[in-house]
Amino acid sequence: MSRMQRAVLVLSSVALALSFAAYAQKPAAQGAEEAAVRAADEQWSQAAGARDLEKTIGFYADNGILQPPGSPALAGKAAVRAFWAAAFQDPAYQLSWKPVEVGVARSGDLAYTRGSYDFTYTAGGKALREHGKDLVVWKKQADGAWKVVVDMFSADGPVTPIQP
Amino acid sequence: MSRMQRAVLVLSSVALALSFAAYAQKPAAQGAEEAAVRAADEQWSQAAGARDLEKTIGFYADNGILQPPGSPALAGKAAVRAFWAAAFQDPAYQLSWKPVEVGVARSGDLAYTRGSYDFTYTAGGKALREHGKDLVVWKKQADGAWKVVVDMFSADGPVTPIQP
Repeated sequence: MSRMQRAVLVLSSVALALSFAAYAQKPAAQGAEEAAVRAADEQWSQAAGARDLEKTIGFYADNGILQPPGSPALAGKAAVRAFWAAAFQDPAYQLSWKPVEVGVARSGDLAYTRGSYDFTYTAGGKALREHGKDLVVWKKQADGAWKVVVDMFSADGPVTPIQP
Repeated sequence: MSRMQRAVLVLSSVALALSFAAYAQKPAAQGAEEAAVRAADEQWSQAAGARDLEKTIGFYADNGILQPPGSPALAGKAAVRAFWAAAFQDPAYQLSWKPVEVGVARSGDLAYTRGSYDFTYTAGGKALREHGKDLVVWKKQADGAWKVVVDMFSADGPVTPIQP
């Protein structure tokens, strides 16, 4: 066996081993990414619940899009910031959500969460309580952080005035 | 070089070549999947526009979820079928949508479309016209077909009564 043949054999064997390792690790890696997306979604809800504007909009990708009911799509950080800033100014504002389903691509670069939320806000001079659902698409960024690329939500039914 | 060494070398070289091929083909494969998802979305809109119930609900995965405004999430084919059957019975019903953005995971198993729609329907005895936006998550099935796992839409603003 020549030096060259030995080198090719070693390199090829390493490639083979890495290929098997990559296949074997996929489910575990996907599970870890699912946990990371779920954690990001929960931290995002905590930031929004605390009216932390910088932290809340920090979960959106730079070109992230928010698609609220009764509004055209709001594209980009400035539009998303204006939406959340207005929501946080409402004295009745309360919001929390939780993921009920998390799905991640095998490649670990794209994911979605489907969740439910409770939202209290003022409309027409009245404090209203709204229960609803959401759908959020996430992309893993170059730095490894999961960010929101599209965010959509809507009420489950008629909203309920809060009795004083 | 023994027979065994030669066999290992051949197998390893094949594995190495396949690894490079897989990496090299990724962008092209992703582009092809984007086109497939876009085509599925367009065919789905045509089926819905033609009130073709079987074809329309055929685009949802078996456990597909529809999240309409003012309704809890409708989970599974039976609930999704009932929603579309009711919509198709409205004499004023007209619907079409088109994708404005398609995103596919590198692994080609998960994708999303973001689009806009025009919807005409009867509510409170009046024919109304609604322009809106959607967000749809797709999963590639075992047979290679892209199916809808979560479907969400909402109006861009107040709906407009159609003048007779």
